[in-house]
Amino acid sequence: MDPALADAYLAQSRDRHLAQLVTFLRIPSISALPAHRGAMAEAATWLADHLRDLGTTDVRILPTAGHPVVYGHWRAADGLPTVLIYGHYDVQPVDPLAEWESPPFAPEIRHGRIYARGAMDDKGMLYAPLAALDAVRSVAGAPPLNLKFLFEGEEEILSPNLEPFIHEHRKLLGADLAVSADGAMWDADTPSLTVGGRGVAALQIDVRGARTDLHGGTYGGVVPNAIDALTTLLAGMHAPRGRVTVEGFYDNVRSVPDAERRQIALTPFDEAAYRTQLGVRALDGEPEFTPVERLWIRPVLQVNGIWGGFQGDGIKMVLPAEAHAKLTCRLVPNQDPDHVLAAIERHVRLHAPADVAVTVTRFPGRARPYLMLADHPALTVAAGALKEVYGKDPIPYRMGGTLPFADIVKRELGTWLIFFAFGERDCQQHAPNEFMRLRSLDRGMRAYVRLFAALGAIEPRALRAG
Amino acid sequence: MDPALADAYLAQSRDRHLAQLVTFLRIPSISALPAHRGAMAEAATWLADHLRDLGTTDVRILPTAGHPVVYGHWRAADGLPTVLIYGHYDVQPVDPLAEWESPPFAPEIRHGRIYARGAMDDKGMLYAPLAALDAVRSVAGAPPLNLKFLFEGEEEILSPNLEPFIHEHRKLLGADLAVSADGAMWDADTPSLTVGGRGVAALQIDVRGARTDLHGGTYGGVVPNAIDALTTLLAGMHAPRGRVTVEGFYDNVRSVPDAERRQIALTPFDEAAYRTQLGVRALDGEPEFTPVERLWIRPVLQVNGIWGGFQGDGIKMVLPAEAHAKLTCRLVPNQDPDHVLAAIERHVRLHAPADVAVTVTRFPGRARPYLMLADHPALTVAAGALKEVYGKDPIPYRMGGTLPFADIVKRELGTWLIFFAFGERDCQQHAPNEFMRLRSLDRGMRAYVRLFAALGAIEPRALRAG
Repeated sequence: MDPALADAYLAQSRDRHLAQLVTFLRIPSISALPAHRGAMAEAATWLADHLRDLGTTDVRILPTAGHPVVYGHWRAADGLPTVLIYGHYDVQPVDPLAEWESPPFAPEIRHGRIYARGAMDDKGMLYAPLAALDAVRSVAGAPPLNLKFLFEGEEEILSPNLEPFIHEHRKLLGADLAVSADGAMWDADTPSLTVGGRGVAALQIDVRGARTDLHGGTYGGVVPNAIDALTTLLAGMHAPRGRVTVEGFYDNVRSVPDAERRQIALTPFDEAAYRTQLGVRALDGEPEFTPVERLWIRPVLQVNGIWGGFQGDGIKMVLPAEAHAKLTCRLVPNQDPDHVLAAIERHVRLHAPADVAVTVTRFPGRARPYLMLADHPALTVAAGALKEVYGKDPIPYRMGGTLPFADIVKRELGTWLIFFAFGERDCQQHAPNEFMRLRSLDRGMRAYVRLFAALGAIEPRALRAG
Repeated sequence: MDPALADAYLAQSRDRHLAQLVTFLRIPSISALPAHRGAMAEAATWLADHLRDLGTTDVRILPTAGHPVVYGHWRAADGLPTVLIYGHYDVQPVDPLAEWESPPFAPEIRHGRIYARGAMDDKGMLYAPLAALDAVRSVAGAPPLNLKFLFEGEEEILSPNLEPFIHEHRKLLGADLAVSADGAMWDADTPSLTVGGRGVAALQIDVRGARTDLHGGTYGGVVPNAIDALTTLLAGMHAPRGRVTVEGFYDNVRSVPDAERRQIALTPFDEAAYRTQLGVRALDGEPEFTPVERLWIRPVLQVNGIWGGFQGDGIKMVLPAEAHAKLTCRLVPNQDPDHVLAAIERHVRLHAPADVAVTVTRFPGRARPYLMLADHPALTVAAGALKEVYGKDPIPYRMGGTLPFADIVKRELGTWLIFFAFGERDCQQHAPNEFMRLRSLDRGMRAYVRLFAALGAIEPRALRAG
């Protein structure tokens, strides 16, 4: 197959492809909101129909305990590698709605970008391999490898049902390699190839003092204040500048070889521009690491939310009986989520004031850090495909977070995963005015054409190695 | 006038008085809720009508920028002292409604108590001087002193319009002494006489990091976390065990003479029972002071509410851009609210992390601590009235909080105030199932009869002295 022919087909089909993506983006498939259950089913059906239109023979909408998985299998030929393409059809909620310049589910093209909830994450990004399949099939009759598809509907709610689903369907899903169409590029001018990603573990801390809120004047000075206990506990988990003081938190952190740190130092990073974009006065974190290192190879303990007592207008002078905080850990190789959670629980037991009751609850949705084999052949051919399309070598990239799927597919199926995703970090993912650059979408389609060709030429065994 | 005759009248009139109080308690006069504006007007009208029924000649409903003040003047005779009776007809909101055993505005008598929102604070307590006026008038034709009444409708929202109101009407309100029918007794078996109360100053701290909430994985490690900044700042304001570390916070705190501390040590306080009642594991606060001293003569810095980031079910891994806290200071003589607020502002300026923006906002509704002249003749006769009714000497009591009116009436009118209020600390004030003991209500009526008689016999000049 000549990639130039596929490129020509993609150029001719551009309006049709965009129109299809717009149809998909119009469906408000917000997995977090029960009222959107109908839209979730509609999006799954749209995807399944689209896979069938692309000639996928075995297409199924498979139930889970939550939203269904859309599965497909395009059998090209025995002996060719089988690659499992991952993506998700669910999107984040749209709040705050007032900050959107165009409605989140009325996709609009402005300045070479398509704006909509999901335009990048992940409907836009998962559309790239589908358009590439359309192109290679049109040019060559069939893709140059066997393709399986797994599009889940719960990524934005931490994939709570994915692990049992994959375990149950491990035969059906068997593949030589997994490719995630979810992920991100470093920036629009810098192709990047993901070689690592931080894992995650999440917890809630609940503090209770007295039985009920009390009059602040009548009881202040003798009755323990739940908020004071919580803020003291949280403040005691960090030294200045981001260092975590929870004993055991840094256990098993892989020492990063100097060669890797030198490579990371080559990543283009304009701190002033970054601060301006985010509206931040100064960057934070461990001074002995560069900002990119702090994002990529250092774990963090992060408070995501806190609440307790009176939050209305003005003042209500209560002595608060309860206070709560939600926290996540971002983990690096070779930290183990449960080991870190146990360390935090131990810290809380040791440091919580004795006069309040403190409980720690672990959330589901843990993920181990992702670290790809540096010399895996799939990374080599993916780098080649990116170079052909972008005209330059991709830089090694590590994501600040990871995908639960990356960890699950390795553990359940023994399958390596690479990220091949064409949105950039600045696309307002999870925020108002989410967008996808049309140029990045085009590049993604052409890159997937080349990736399919290159992976198809590798021995299946070589993809499974390592 | 023979107090025994008044007592007999009160005993005969008990059912009628209770029925009147029930009518008053049925009016849902919640000052904080705009939807209850009509009920507020209804309660003011009820009070004004009731004052007229008691023979008060000059009764007016006077507007303020918020809810109106009910004013009345019962002129007995020139040369007699004029005493200004204070109370408030507004009540607290009723949330959580589900915890009420009977509806808050359907008063119910159970076990010798009347249950309703406002049963104690302050409708029940302000009814005592009104019933006493009814009795002395019935027995003697007129009260033995001149009475003025000031019943405000905004005490539960910190009296934001009271100071300008009193300033504007200072001639109308002029009196030799003020008596507050709002306050509290130590317990039902221990009559107490308020000799002090902690002042109050309130503020809000707002922290902003990045322009918007960000993806916790993508930015965690370099972008300042507003919640971390806030919890660190709040934790840094306290040493362990309640000592405030804000420089200047303890400036001007009056050193309490040993004699006063010995007197305080006589206050009956059963720590185990107190803990059990409140559901608290252990008491908190400065160990070098007794629990009663911590409540009465020590200032506190108290967080009343905190919020920031994600507070919903489950986890949303945001890096929060904003965090907020509301705080109050409870102040003792001779702390000045504005001096303390300035000290906190300075602390925040010095200790806030440089990479976030932190602002401090002072709330209106400041009150200086209340400290009554120990040898004021009004205290002496009030103690005598309590001893006659309770059969024992009252203990000196200091309130954990104070009333904005106590400070305002002294500054604007130069008038001393005593507290003469018959609810106890355990009456579920501001909480579900608020109640008033009928026995305490009866005692209050009889004590006011005696207070009126004793104050009427004092030279007006002596009441104004000090």
